[in-house]
Amino acid sequence: MSNERVEVTQSIYSENDRIAAQTRQFFDQSSVFAVNVMGAPGAGKTSSIIHLINSLPHLRSYVLEGDIESDIDTIKMKNLGIETLQINTYGACHLDAPTVRKAIDGLSLAEPGLLFIENIGNLVCPAEFMIGEHIKLLICSVAEGSDKPYKYPLAFEKADMILLTKIDLKSFVDFDDRFFGKGVQALNKNAAVFEVDARTGEGFATAARHLEELARRARS
Amino acid sequence: MSNERVEVTQSIYSENDRIAAQTRQFFDQSSVFAVNVMGAPGAGKTSSIIHLINSLPHLRSYVLEGDIESDIDTIKMKNLGIETLQINTYGACHLDAPTVRKAIDGLSLAEPGLLFIENIGNLVCPAEFMIGEHIKLLICSVAEGSDKPYKYPLAFEKADMILLTKIDLKSFVDFDDRFFGKGVQALNKNAAVFEVDARTGEGFATAARHLEELARRARS
Repeated sequence: MSNERVEVTQSIYSENDRIAAQTRQFFDQSSVFAVNVMGAPGAGKTSSIIHLINSLPHLRSYVLEGDIESDIDTIKMKNLGIETLQINTYGACHLDAPTVRKAIDGLSLAEPGLLFIENIGNLVCPAEFMIGEHIKLLICSVAEGSDKPYKYPLAFEKADMILLTKIDLKSFVDFDDRFFGKGVQALNKNAAVFEVDARTGEGFATAARHLEELARRARS
Repeated sequence: MSNERVEVTQSIYSENDRIAAQTRQFFDQSSVFAVNVMGAPGAGKTSSIIHLINSLPHLRSYVLEGDIESDIDTIKMKNLGIETLQINTYGACHLDAPTVRKAIDGLSLAEPGLLFIENIGNLVCPAEFMIGEHIKLLICSVAEGSDKPYKYPLAFEKADMILLTKIDLKSFVDFDDRFFGKGVQALNKNAAVFEVDARTGEGFATAARHLEELARRARS
């Protein structure tokens, strides 16, 4: 990489992190706990967010929907009565802090609560950019295979909490629990892993309690 | 984006495309048909490559395995007797032309045949970079959901051929054939879509015949 490219890259990251820190401060002042939801395309990010919100009816929830194009998931959320705002990146492979900072003006954040920021479906780039979140929630489906921690280590390393989704498909896709668990453990000793099934709702109540506990800790 | 950033970005693309054109010329001289295999993490890229190679035993095949980290798939390929070389990008979210050009020195390309270049598992960034390929083969699994063309249009738009994988899971994941097909059609009228199941091998013989036909057309 040329010096010019290295300098530009570095300045992008430091500018991003500065804005992310400001955004997080704003969330703290608003008593909003921000969750950066990351995962590959089709991992089950939207379904997981909906189940977590439904499992925490005593909390107000907000959603920022990141997509390259389309507003399919925002329509889904709004139909459920969830205050949701669409961010379209038109090509960009991740959300960054300036984009999120601009978008939050469009949310009321009228009451304390949870803000789920659904990142672009991509197991690589989103893990590199802070966007003002308190925690990163990684969504990974058994259909992606048990080797994902080995192939995409950064996302697993940076996660504060992991949902393993579509566990009803385990037997059909030869998912190797031991291999997956070993891969996660090697990268991340702190993130709890929760097995969930969005078709039946299995596992989400427990995962939601853990999320609420993380939010409580962030406040204290 | 600052002018400086726009200029740097443009120069990266044009430098990349220049090298990609040279690489493709080299493949033409070697009578090697290069296939850029793109898809999300866990879409079934490696399994699909193996099935296509097995379906074309009369052709010599080579593989370049792109991964951020690990050599899990290269070991799998080599155990099957396929000449394979690992590329690790250590963070980079796609293969680019300079990386591929450097890597091909490590392959014999001793006989005419097929070269499968398995890109990083990412449904966004790889579609933006030519790497010297003759065609882009997009791998998409039914487990990712039928809305993928709408959310990740560039990969579908640029594909020359599409494999819809894991079709044995269709009924379990409520895959909507009509919605998926309509999304693909709106973006791409030329790429044939083949439904395949790597567990049984279903569909790969037909897909392989089409791939061979595309290779034949490229030579003439």
